[in-house]
Formats: sequence, C-alpha cells, structure tokens
Amino acid sequence: MMTTEEVAKKLVELCNKGDYEGAIDGLYGPEIVSVEARAMGNMPAETKGLEGVRGKLKWWMENHEVHSSKASSPFVARDTFAVRFDIDVTDKNSGERMQLSEVGIYKVKDGKVIREEFLPMA
Amino acid sequence: MMTTEEVAKKLVELCNKGDYEGAIDGLYGPEIVSVEARAMGNMPAETKGLEGVRGKLKWWMENHEVHSSKASSPFVARDTFAVRFDIDVTDKNSGERMQLSEVGIYKVKDGKVIREEFLPMA
Repeated sequence: MMTTEEVAKKLVELCNKGDYEGAIDGLYGPEIVSVEARAMGNMPAETKGLEGVRGKLKWWMENHEVHSSKASSPFVARDTFAVRFDIDVTDKNSGERMQLSEVGIYKVKDGKVIREEFLPMA
Repeated sequence: MMTTEEVAKKLVELCNKGDYEGAIDGLYGPEIVSVEARAMGNMPAETKGLEGVRGKLKWWMENHEVHSSKASSPFVARDTFAVRFDIDVTDKNSGERMQLSEVGIYKVKDGKVIREEFLPMA
C-alpha cells in the first residue's frame, strides 16, 4: 500500500506529464469526493465517485486549451497533502486566456485519494 | 464578521510583518486546534487553545533565529484557506541553518481561525 507521500509524488509526476487520467485510474479510490471552489459549466462544485471525476476531467479537456500546466512539489503530513498548480489555459467558449493558480488539498486513505479540494489564489 | 478571504489576507499581511502574536490575538478563535507534522521540542504535534498556540510561538521564537520568512498570497475557498511559508532559520540549539517550506491549511468559523495544520515540503 502506498504511503501518503508516495501517492503525492506519483500524482505530481503524472500531472506534470499531463496524464490526469492515469492519476485518476491509478491513485483515486472509488469513494472519491472532488470539490471545486464553485460550480463549473453544468457541474456542481462537488463531484462523487470515479465516473464523476472522469466526467469532470473530460469536460475540462473538451472546453479548455491548456498551454502549460505545472504541479509543485507536494507538501505532506499524515493523511493529507497539498500541491500548487499553475495553469495557462484558454477557455474555448469565451476565447479568454487565463493564468490560473490554485492549491489542491488531498486526503489519502488505504493508499488511495479519497478527497480532493481546490482553492484558487485569492 | 470577516470572511474567509479577509481573514486569510490579514493573516498573510501580519505574518509578512513578523507579527505572529497579532495574528493569534486578532484572528484566532479560543477553540483553535494547531497541528504540526510532528512533535517539536517537548510539545506534542497537536496544540489546543489560544494559550497553547501562544506557548508554541514563544518556544519557536526562543529556539530559532529567523533570518527571513515569507508568506505567499492565500488560496481560498469556502471555510478553508492555504498559505505557503518559506523560512530561512537557524536552530539555536544545534546551530543548524535550514530553509523550510511548508503549507499551512486553515479553517475559519464565525470569522476566526479554528484550525491550522502545517504540511512540510516532501
């Protein structure tokens, strides 16, 4: 079973390769709860389960052109880790290009991510 | 009553002035729970209450020489905010100089910080 630190480092590695699907498939537990700062598109702020999280990723990739995306080294203690993301992206619908920075806070149980929560830079 | 974002910005401002006591006095609730990654000195990882948190700060300041300390812009959603700290410090007991990076995760209730948890960079 992977430790919190092992899960954290693997998630950062996969995100920096752009392999978000691999991160969900390999590191997320079936009871995952994913919480955004606010509702996006037709989706509520909170999503439950692997299919829901895969659906959110699909929506994101279909509606955004990602120019670059960087995940920081993880910060880890006990069952929790945090990663900073810096993303340069264009919203395909509005054409608006944005530089987004956010922190993801992750909870790990039995070697799997069971909760992720995203906080945008204020 | 201050919003989570207002509390977060004030905390960052006070930390960047080195006014940690002011942050505790002005922004922390009496039921504060403060969680370090591990026990430090004679103190357990978890500290409860304002006096406990002031005692931890006093111990920290007495046992460390802080060369520089920087708090990032806060990341905020709902009742939660996160701040990255980069600290250049010498442990007065060992003489060891260290560059520490950690993320603090804060929970706000009724305009006051009720929980802080620190995650060191892995």
